[in-house]
Amino acid sequence: MSIEKPVFSKVAIHTYTNKPWNLQECIDRYSRAGVAAMSVWRNLIDPAEGGIGIDEAAKRVRDSGLAVPALVRGGFFSRPTVEERQEAIDLNRRYVDEAAALGAEMVVLVVGAVPGLELAEARKQVKDGIAAVADHAREAGVKLAIEPLHPMYAADKSCVNRMAEAREICEDLQHPAVGIAADVYHIWWDPDVESELRRAAEQNTLFGFHICDWRVNTRHLLTDRGLMGDGCIHVAKFRRLVHSLGFEGYHEIEIFNEEYWAMDQNEYLELILRREEACR
Amino acid sequence: MSIEKPVFSKVAIHTYTNKPWNLQECIDRYSRAGVAAMSVWRNLIDPAEGGIGIDEAAKRVRDSGLAVPALVRGGFFSRPTVEERQEAIDLNRRYVDEAAALGAEMVVLVVGAVPGLELAEARKQVKDGIAAVADHAREAGVKLAIEPLHPMYAADKSCVNRMAEAREICEDLQHPAVGIAADVYHIWWDPDVESELRRAAEQNTLFGFHICDWRVNTRHLLTDRGLMGDGCIHVAKFRRLVHSLGFEGYHEIEIFNEEYWAMDQNEYLELILRREEACR
Repeated sequence: MSIEKPVFSKVAIHTYTNKPWNLQECIDRYSRAGVAAMSVWRNLIDPAEGGIGIDEAAKRVRDSGLAVPALVRGGFFSRPTVEERQEAIDLNRRYVDEAAALGAEMVVLVVGAVPGLELAEARKQVKDGIAAVADHAREAGVKLAIEPLHPMYAADKSCVNRMAEAREICEDLQHPAVGIAADVYHIWWDPDVESELRRAAEQNTLFGFHICDWRVNTRHLLTDRGLMGDGCIHVAKFRRLVHSLGFEGYHEIEIFNEEYWAMDQNEYLELILRREEACR
Repeated sequence: MSIEKPVFSKVAIHTYTNKPWNLQECIDRYSRAGVAAMSVWRNLIDPAEGGIGIDEAAKRVRDSGLAVPALVRGGFFSRPTVEERQEAIDLNRRYVDEAAALGAEMVVLVVGAVPGLELAEARKQVKDGIAAVADHAREAGVKLAIEPLHPMYAADKSCVNRMAEAREICEDLQHPAVGIAADVYHIWWDPDVESELRRAAEQNTLFGFHICDWRVNTRHLLTDRGLMGDGCIHVAKFRRLVHSLGFEGYHEIEIFNEEYWAMDQNEYLELILRREEACR
């Protein structure tokens, strides 16, 4: 390796960003590129989704030397029936075990929503679900990071849509294993975003930090997320802010984008890393 | 006319809902259907957009006997340069004059946003722009209604994305001509929506109320808005709430949807009115 090679010591990439790659391809290519960490999506683990199983995945990840900020994703605690909510709790306990096996710091929680269910009720279900998993997480040495999702996902994916709402759950639970994953895609538009990031840092609940961009002509609600520099988010400013607040975790790159998935993924990885350098 | 014919005495339809119709078609068909009011979009007025001009439009609208809650839409005060911001102010004064000519109660303001401009700066430009138009509006007997737009439009259409942010502008300006148009599509997900509607009613700033629905699998950010009953918004509950708060204005139906525009518009109008009755 040349000494000029950039080292991305505080960068993590979410495996779903390079959706066409399997787990071993992610490991090999991130390692070769000097990326320090990756957050592992469950589709690469769960045999039901074509994954290689947690034992094999954990062995490969641990052998790789890559750090793992997060297993992605758990949550979906808001569900129509008591039985389904209990199933969500059981599933999330299993995800905690998987995260521990991988050596992941946290499980990212997309908390769920049920179309038409009153949001206050949905949020209560979420809080109860997280509370039921939190002790197990602490014992396993794994954190639970609530990810507020953009309000355009409020109907069916997340009834927690702002940093403030995630903070309220953290304050209610007061559990050392429960905090927040802040993704600029979801929160950049919020007038309170800076003050809420500050409060999260003060409360020791800023567990995760995700970067990407908001395309000004967003063409699809799910799969048109921008790479840093494609859109209007002041990513560098957010990075400096969390750094100034004492955040020492990885800056996780998480992008879902059909056009990028259609690219040669090696070229795409090079592009990702150039853009990461450009928004430092 | 049969006495069984429903009378939609508190219903207004936005002309853009029936985009394939020209102004006269909207007038004729809404009148025939017993709809009491329509909000007029400027594309039907502005000759540059194929409209018939304000004088002719005003004559036809006034002759129709239809009430006009709103001229839609003004705003776009946040712009890159001083000159463009002055142009926006001049344009909005003209829209106020047009609204007065039509006999419209208010001009709905989509306040604007500039991609990449700091939101705080954009919001200041908006406040300054509205302030510069407010006296002219009062003198003309026309209200200015800030419409908070869903956060998915924060990049380029509106830097005001919650009722709270619209309220803050109203509180800063303290001008009797300045208030809020609350559209359930944009605000339903907000945990503060009920308390903010209440505050708007108390502050006499709840000028407009728009109904439609949020499709759970929204396929397009602009043109996949649902008709009441298509989605997850508790429209009837919102209607009862604003009624209980003393709101006496029209319930304006405003829907942009490619599939509905492709329908026979007479059949679509019947469907709209059936759905309106179903969510009372």
